[in-house]
Amino acid sequence: MIPAKGYAAFDAQAQLGPFNFERREPGPHDVQFDILYCGVCHSDLHQIKNEWGNSIYPMVPGHEIVGRVTAVGAHVKKFKTGDLVGVGCLVDSCRECENCSQGQEQYCLNGSSGTYNSYEQDKVTPTFGGYSNKIVVSEDFVLLVSEKLHLPAVAPLLCAGITTWSPLRHWKVGKGHKVGVLGLGGLGHMAVKFAVSFGAEVTMLSTSPNKKADAERLGAHHFLLTSDQEQVNAARGSFDFIIDTVSAEHDYGMYLGLLKTNGIHICVGAPPTPASVHAFAMIAGRKSIAGSMIGGIQETQEMLDYCAEHNIVSDIELIEMPYIQNAYDRMLKGDVRYRFVIDMATL
Amino acid sequence: MIPAKGYAAFDAQAQLGPFNFERREPGPHDVQFDILYCGVCHSDLHQIKNEWGNSIYPMVPGHEIVGRVTAVGAHVKKFKTGDLVGVGCLVDSCRECENCSQGQEQYCLNGSSGTYNSYEQDKVTPTFGGYSNKIVVSEDFVLLVSEKLHLPAVAPLLCAGITTWSPLRHWKVGKGHKVGVLGLGGLGHMAVKFAVSFGAEVTMLSTSPNKKADAERLGAHHFLLTSDQEQVNAARGSFDFIIDTVSAEHDYGMYLGLLKTNGIHICVGAPPTPASVHAFAMIAGRKSIAGSMIGGIQETQEMLDYCAEHNIVSDIELIEMPYIQNAYDRMLKGDVRYRFVIDMATL
Repeated sequence: MIPAKGYAAFDAQAQLGPFNFERREPGPHDVQFDILYCGVCHSDLHQIKNEWGNSIYPMVPGHEIVGRVTAVGAHVKKFKTGDLVGVGCLVDSCRECENCSQGQEQYCLNGSSGTYNSYEQDKVTPTFGGYSNKIVVSEDFVLLVSEKLHLPAVAPLLCAGITTWSPLRHWKVGKGHKVGVLGLGGLGHMAVKFAVSFGAEVTMLSTSPNKKADAERLGAHHFLLTSDQEQVNAARGSFDFIIDTVSAEHDYGMYLGLLKTNGIHICVGAPPTPASVHAFAMIAGRKSIAGSMIGGIQETQEMLDYCAEHNIVSDIELIEMPYIQNAYDRMLKGDVRYRFVIDMATL
Repeated sequence: MIPAKGYAAFDAQAQLGPFNFERREPGPHDVQFDILYCGVCHSDLHQIKNEWGNSIYPMVPGHEIVGRVTAVGAHVKKFKTGDLVGVGCLVDSCRECENCSQGQEQYCLNGSSGTYNSYEQDKVTPTFGGYSNKIVVSEDFVLLVSEKLHLPAVAPLLCAGITTWSPLRHWKVGKGHKVGVLGLGGLGHMAVKFAVSFGAEVTMLSTSPNKKADAERLGAHHFLLTSDQEQVNAARGSFDFIIDTVSAEHDYGMYLGLLKTNGIHICVGAPPTPASVHAFAMIAGRKSIAGSMIGGIQETQEMLDYCAEHNIVSDIELIEMPYIQNAYDRMLKGDVRYRFVIDMATL
């Protein structure tokens, strides 16, 4: 085993501290790498606090991981020592089910292995995430990262990026489409960047007038203040898609009204409580509410390659490891533009 | 003007009685026909009772209308005196908007003209439906009915038929798909017939064990008793589509759990109150909840032609006009297999 160190939560009190643990020796198909940067996702905090009721302690959070390869197993073909690589929300899956065989490992029917707060495919060995100095992952779940991009800002692509990329690609969003992006945070700012890059006409939907300037800076063509009933009325029936990144409670009905006939409201943020939906709001215009969860490995690589080609990264604030509690406090207040990324040299 | 007689509701007390009124003289593009049969749709009763809050009295209900042409306007090309014809839920629309120009008149952006409890496109002249002896409708909203089929049983195709046909065609349901049909009533029994005819593997989902035999007689391959938790658990993740014809309150969450990855729950029944939906139930398998409303004119003709070719009609109970109150009472109890149709000779 390989000694590793990280920051862990030891219970649901949400106080992280140093933690020593072990990574497995790289097997013939494994890649070992030094973690250089790790993004801070809102789901880290949900899971640290056991808000989803499935937490395993000690927990080393972090699933937006980038670093440089230090060793590869004998049969590894795609990577070599010195490569820049990334790991997102998944480190393994059954690889055999209908979904895995179609590159949709995120929907593995036998249960994928999350990068942390989860188990390896043996269903026994806990996984530890990216708030740590090194990691060993099967090459099939490792992504190649371009040297061209600003590396710390690549980290959030592995979750916030792919979570918005995947539905935009799945529903073939692009030129000729009007797209609303609901919520300007880690996911929302990536949804704007991707939808704009794909040629869609993008409107930021927000209750905060002070997000307007930023939305436009990110490339949004329009800003709709959803607390202004006049603006809402004027936009009724105008969007082909709404990408909903909000994980606080909100009313889907209002947003269904903003969709065109055949429009789709796509949830990538999951409010903790159910929302009420009137079937007639969908029936009256053959509208849909859909959900989408992260993305598969192949499409994550496609996203990273696309980002390298089009110079797309996340907007980040680089922090030191001991700052993590402050980062959480600020994240809860929405005081981050738009993703904290931990410099792992500060561990 | 042409004198016409029918049965009308005069207020929300839901007591229908004889009513004399007038139809317009057929214009150059109009078709006049004698109504031979008219189906009784649950929405007739909703609107008679003003349960949707938009009722216009006196109201002559009925939008599942078949009859024989007695006169055509000078410029009518598609119909001649003596033809069997039908009219469904729509008698006109703006014909110019994006949806109308794509044959989706049911989603007319300027407001279609419903066959009753609505207004002509002048937005002033009320429309009167099929509980009457004759009607005059623009040829563009009249459907040709085959002489091959049992005519009274064709009537419900104009609403119950097209309402289930349209989403099955829109989402290209067919061979290789597993389809659940939720609710076995006027819409549900047509959904089973069509989905089976399209080659899908069809399961009736119902809380009533006594619907099993009928579901199988209609062609359903399986029956799932949704009040039996074991059966529900065994069916988790198994359907590509669920066609939801239930207009009583129910829990979408359970049905989302029965869908496969990428599955779509399609609502054609609209409960009066909003249902609560947890976004995570959609996110976890890229599932959708969608709605669909009746169908366009061209696809209604396609459905009627298909039904003639494949000998598909509704299962009906033919009634006399004065029986209508008893029919409503029995409909509310679910005591109809599966559609009442009024013999207009009894008016």
